[in-house]
Amino acid sequence: MTASSSALRAPADAHRRASTVRFPVDAGQVLDRCRTLVRPALREAVERTHPWVGEMAAYSFGWCEVGGAPAAASGGKGVRQALAVLGAEAAGAPGRAAVPGAVAVELVHAFSLLHDDIMDGDEARRRRPTVWKAYGTGPAVLAGDALFALAVETLAAAPQGPRAVRLLSVALQDLVRGQADDLLFTTRPWTGPERVRPDEYRTMAEHKTGALLGCAAALGALLGGAPPATVDALDRAGRHLGIAFQVVDDLLGIWGDPAVTGKPVHGDLRERKKTYPVLAALDTPLAGRLAALLESAADPGEAAALIEEAGGRSAALTEARRHVAAVEAALADVPLQKGPAEELRSLLDFLVRRDL
Amino acid sequence: MTASSSALRAPADAHRRASTVRFPVDAGQVLDRCRTLVRPALREAVERTHPWVGEMAAYSFGWCEVGGAPAAASGGKGVRQALAVLGAEAAGAPGRAAVPGAVAVELVHAFSLLHDDIMDGDEARRRRPTVWKAYGTGPAVLAGDALFALAVETLAAAPQGPRAVRLLSVALQDLVRGQADDLLFTTRPWTGPERVRPDEYRTMAEHKTGALLGCAAALGALLGGAPPATVDALDRAGRHLGIAFQVVDDLLGIWGDPAVTGKPVHGDLRERKKTYPVLAALDTPLAGRLAALLESAADPGEAAALIEEAGGRSAALTEARRHVAAVEAALADVPLQKGPAEELRSLLDFLVRRDL
Repeated sequence: MTASSSALRAPADAHRRASTVRFPVDAGQVLDRCRTLVRPALREAVERTHPWVGEMAAYSFGWCEVGGAPAAASGGKGVRQALAVLGAEAAGAPGRAAVPGAVAVELVHAFSLLHDDIMDGDEARRRRPTVWKAYGTGPAVLAGDALFALAVETLAAAPQGPRAVRLLSVALQDLVRGQADDLLFTTRPWTGPERVRPDEYRTMAEHKTGALLGCAAALGALLGGAPPATVDALDRAGRHLGIAFQVVDDLLGIWGDPAVTGKPVHGDLRERKKTYPVLAALDTPLAGRLAALLESAADPGEAAALIEEAGGRSAALTEARRHVAAVEAALADVPLQKGPAEELRSLLDFLVRRDL
Repeated sequence: MTASSSALRAPADAHRRASTVRFPVDAGQVLDRCRTLVRPALREAVERTHPWVGEMAAYSFGWCEVGGAPAAASGGKGVRQALAVLGAEAAGAPGRAAVPGAVAVELVHAFSLLHDDIMDGDEARRRRPTVWKAYGTGPAVLAGDALFALAVETLAAAPQGPRAVRLLSVALQDLVRGQADDLLFTTRPWTGPERVRPDEYRTMAEHKTGALLGCAAALGALLGGAPPATVDALDRAGRHLGIAFQVVDDLLGIWGDPAVTGKPVHGDLRERKKTYPVLAALDTPLAGRLAALLESAADPGEAAALIEEAGGRSAALTEARRHVAAVEAALADVPLQKGPAEELRSLLDFLVRRDL
């Protein structure tokens, strides 16, 4: 990912662009439409695997309870499948052309959540026990592997299969790199030459979150017959979207309204997470004081105030806005169908811009 | 896999065939030659991933110690890479044509060992701590994922990529199915309608061990430009080889000489493993007595004697010989280059037949 000069366009300009849309698109409706389109093929893919493993997969998608009884739990927003469908539509193809790609990226996303929850020891996701907590670590490892294998199988069988699998494999490598760096960040000190720099964090977020979002949109475009420049532009847009989303998530993790985020106030500070605002603040002369506060049992409100004083909050806002602008620039860089492009922008608004 | 009538050919016939080879091929030399051919590309693939994850992968291949210092530990025999190389050569192509396939199957094999060791709680492999024991469960999950992703990436970039990835994805699905059944077998009773039948065990072994061996040989043939009938025949040969290997391993796990196997005598009985000889014996009127013995703290030698009395040992021998004959039949079914075909047969001898 390279930041072009247009990536630094001020957010005000981006808002002006959005305000020219006469009929604002409802992102929730877009997500619902794409979920409905992709769901049958996603279910069919999960049903291809071993029934026991398939139950764990279905549980992770919110389709069933432990034991297999039907459920209607939240299986996530389905952003990746929507990006794939809109990628195809933006290239002038029917959304159904993207379905194998949409299925593959949702499967890969579910696989990575499943394995990441094991690595991070997270016991709950979307208000339910995580798969490893509900079924055991070994079975959860296997269920993740199955989802991964189903994703590869689905894409390999698609038209444009070879190029599609290559796109996916790049994202898979990036996912591993991002998760490896994220795990290693926890072992590094707050200050000194071994500290985590904001640019390392940006690379981690691009790999861990952006790569699969970019792959989703790019796969949709590829399966929709788009030229390489369009595929690349959508990949780039998704990568910037991922970084922006991650940094906004970091901002909400410190200063978000618990009533909106559903997370405790200052939660990320209590958990001593190395998030963008913290790392940016640690890159200033206030680093020593902040590190001492983060390590102490002091009220995390004090640390939050110091991060703000050190400019960590505004640096994160600037960073997020820069990547939102880069998404806009990438979308403006290539010819896209107007309607689907607006729907893509509605997802961008939904995911990050309303919080900036 | 379907058992053809030729799959039931008596082993005596197979031995007569082997005895017509004037210059017996040394399987160790074949494995060494293929390992030397594939090693540089395998190392290059592992070096493409995150350095920390790459170290875990290199450790699992026996190339380094924890921390990265060079080592020359046993990384396994490399049977899968050899099958791929010989598959290409048997199709008349140079062995190097198979290298992407050979790398992919070795990566997938390493991935599956790594994750299986987590699921099975195994703490040692090839006289060293397993990756999860040495690096932690979370990192080992990630290292397995990385190996999996590298395998897909390697194959997707190869000529014949699309068909090659489809072949691999079939094997991956089978690996998951086999491991799922193997895990579930441990929870099922020794007797009664819920017991594990020998034919279920055979399917599990084909999936867990045979699918990747078949995929290896088939991928080599495919990358070597072989016609579909040859690719299919080699896939079938590898699947039968996997079942035969597994059943022979089961026989050695009960009656093998500890000085040869490096495993304790009756080890599989002490661990209450549901192996082929046990399951065959449980399919007889002696099932009740045997189940009681297996569950008791009695000398496992008694159980071994009862399994033999019930015909479990001879049933397993018959089963293994049947699949060895099926390998021979599959290899005889299609035109193959004489030298590489003999080398393939030397691997068969090396892996299973010397023990029958």
